[in-house]
Amino acid sequence: MNMLELIEKKRDGGALTREEIEFFVSGVTGKTIPDYQISAFLMAVLWRGMSDEETTDLTLSMAHSGDVCDLSSIPGMKVDKHSTGGVGDKVTPILLPIVSSFGIPCVKLSGRGLGFTGGTIDKFESIEGFSTTVEPGSFKEKIEKYGLLLGGQTEGLAPCDKYLYALRDVTGTVPSIPLIASSIMSKKIAGGADAIVLDVTCGSGAFMKDRTQAEALSRQMISIGKLANRPVSCVLTSMEQPLGRNVGNILEMQEALDTLRGHGQKDVETVVLALACEMLRMTPEYKDHSDAELQALCKEKITSGAAFAKFEDLVLSQGGKLDSSGSPIFVDEPFEVMTVFADRDGYVSSCDALMVGEASCLLGAGRMEKTDVIDMGAGIRLQKKIGEKVTRGEPLYSLYTGSQNTVGDERIDEALAKMQQAYRISETPCEALQEILGVIRD
Amino acid sequence: MNMLELIEKKRDGGALTREEIEFFVSGVTGKTIPDYQISAFLMAVLWRGMSDEETTDLTLSMAHSGDVCDLSSIPGMKVDKHSTGGVGDKVTPILLPIVSSFGIPCVKLSGRGLGFTGGTIDKFESIEGFSTTVEPGSFKEKIEKYGLLLGGQTEGLAPCDKYLYALRDVTGTVPSIPLIASSIMSKKIAGGADAIVLDVTCGSGAFMKDRTQAEALSRQMISIGKLANRPVSCVLTSMEQPLGRNVGNILEMQEALDTLRGHGQKDVETVVLALACEMLRMTPEYKDHSDAELQALCKEKITSGAAFAKFEDLVLSQGGKLDSSGSPIFVDEPFEVMTVFADRDGYVSSCDALMVGEASCLLGAGRMEKTDVIDMGAGIRLQKKIGEKVTRGEPLYSLYTGSQNTVGDERIDEALAKMQQAYRISETPCEALQEILGVIRD
Repeated sequence: MNMLELIEKKRDGGALTREEIEFFVSGVTGKTIPDYQISAFLMAVLWRGMSDEETTDLTLSMAHSGDVCDLSSIPGMKVDKHSTGGVGDKVTPILLPIVSSFGIPCVKLSGRGLGFTGGTIDKFESIEGFSTTVEPGSFKEKIEKYGLLLGGQTEGLAPCDKYLYALRDVTGTVPSIPLIASSIMSKKIAGGADAIVLDVTCGSGAFMKDRTQAEALSRQMISIGKLANRPVSCVLTSMEQPLGRNVGNILEMQEALDTLRGHGQKDVETVVLALACEMLRMTPEYKDHSDAELQALCKEKITSGAAFAKFEDLVLSQGGKLDSSGSPIFVDEPFEVMTVFADRDGYVSSCDALMVGEASCLLGAGRMEKTDVIDMGAGIRLQKKIGEKVTRGEPLYSLYTGSQNTVGDERIDEALAKMQQAYRISETPCEALQEILGVIRD
Repeated sequence: MNMLELIEKKRDGGALTREEIEFFVSGVTGKTIPDYQISAFLMAVLWRGMSDEETTDLTLSMAHSGDVCDLSSIPGMKVDKHSTGGVGDKVTPILLPIVSSFGIPCVKLSGRGLGFTGGTIDKFESIEGFSTTVEPGSFKEKIEKYGLLLGGQTEGLAPCDKYLYALRDVTGTVPSIPLIASSIMSKKIAGGADAIVLDVTCGSGAFMKDRTQAEALSRQMISIGKLANRPVSCVLTSMEQPLGRNVGNILEMQEALDTLRGHGQKDVETVVLALACEMLRMTPEYKDHSDAELQALCKEKITSGAAFAKFEDLVLSQGGKLDSSGSPIFVDEPFEVMTVFADRDGYVSSCDALMVGEASCLLGAGRMEKTDVIDMGAGIRLQKKIGEKVTRGEPLYSLYTGSQNTVGDERIDEALAKMQQAYRISETPCEALQEILGVIRD
């Protein structure tokens, strides 16, 4: 077997065997296949596609290309949740405590952000002392004690995927459904998940720009789950505008706390509850409950304070600091640089998620390059969202940096320009967006 | 402009501008574009194709990526001939002297062989002392004195093509008509040709396996020629079986001499004369002559000895040695290792060119790797060809090594096995193959 044969087979529309895919993955991981052959192969895959079997073989082979978390000694069904990326996505800090408060063990391995998409790890690290460096060996002990855990994806997890991801980024081979699906699923399987709930975002601020693509990706991941014996459920959510009213690390964590305390934004709560229901339904205890029952149970966990208590457990168990009222102490405080007001009466018809995400990144909330340092206090607060009525002179949005402005005036100007592009106000009323576009299960 | 944008544009089916193609070619030549981006791009080109304009821009840009031979100071129309490769192809040593004997200046830059396809340079180097190392600066002087010249392609000629060719070979991106056409045409244009006659081989021992592909390639090259202002004429020739009865460097040169002396194989003469007619017709002097007239003139050059005299000029002018009868002195003598006889009566229905080429290569006549040393005496003599009647016990073919067997018994056995696969004898009569499948002109 040699790589040239594999490239030619895929180029000519053939389907690769499991052995051929394993040969490829081990060659990538072991760096015995040169990059120029890998990238030609990836372009052939983008062109010719992959069957469900090939995609599953690729997923499992990549999942086993490095360390695999063995969570089997932790009792119960380990359900992982993953988002395909969005702007203002503060779902995890709310969802994890809710599900955990049901007594379901929650182990989540998250990533850092790059570009306009925020990363969950970064958001938690805005809490003073919080550390996501948890040795896989100590997972069991932590889970038994606290019931939930948030880890950073280690270098050793699915290294083949990591390598391919970087190469795809520079070779125009990103937008391939089998490659995207296997990349996501391989990391989840390597992370030890028994079942997976996916928040498949869709719209301007998401990777999948339209619903057809998002559905195709969902079906592909469900098919991998079926063949790999990991139940998968996909919640399609809108990412035309940011989720909630805050973008940026501390700003988002504060908004998450509002939801955990029962007075958050409706759209955030809607998305969190939809995902929580899917996660619960994957466990034997709740598999026969209706959506309405599960939603009610989740809301009860919020109003009773049980979910908030779990959030406190999570913060404390990973070294984070809380003040006397139980709120986390952040490393910085957001500093409002300016607020922009509506210049006319009307209705918000656009609050483009991609533009807002890029503006937030320009303010210091995200990384342009992998090595950039995030300004935890930076971000954007959206006073008005799509469908809302505005009157001339009312605040539309505010720009924040950290207490130390780390980016300078030029980048603030750029961020402002992006925000001006993001917003559109129409004279005629516009409908608010539907947060949940659909749920796809096997 | 950056390479990722170009990959994405081509991946999505777009057409590249001349500026974009020049950016690509200069990036490849200057090694500023990494191989993994080049190979992803090449696969996208193979997938999406290229317009005639793109292919011409690529050709001209590659032609100018290094040294360009300026033959403008040599008077007359400089017509180059090129073959897309074959087995037993001894056309050049016959064709060049014939055309030159008309007083037409002939400058031919040839390559070396790799794999089962022989190289013209290698064949000439089987003559003692013959050197193809000719400085482009001395072309004019040599041509004025002798009228013809055979040079090796220098390192500096179309370096971008050279680089891409090597990369395509290992990334499954060879079989793309625009890439093949631009590769051939860029070298011819860099070589200084005013007009180009192409021997487009077609069949098992050729690069193009079927006639449809060969015609598509021909039309692509004619289109490039038109846009690049270089008249192109394509002669489609059959390469299902080797040309003539000899494969291997000295064996082929000996067969070429037979044709130049007027007693060669019919198929060899047919192909040579068809190409000679096309070359002559490209010159102002012979453009209005009919095929029949030109063929008669060429035959006259053979019978009169004018063509043979030109061959002698060529050999002597490039340091080659001739014996007292005017025949070249070869560096070795082919040594017959074995002859295989027919085991039954019948008709030859297959004498597969690819298999014969590979067998010859195994005997030492070709290079498996670029650095291999060729055994000039090695090769195969075909006593029977397709359509010919055989009687049990008659010789079918003979295997040769040089006077020193350089390959060992194991490889001779492998060569024999290949030859046994190459030949098929049927009970019912088979038709002889047509050598010329067609001529395509603008």
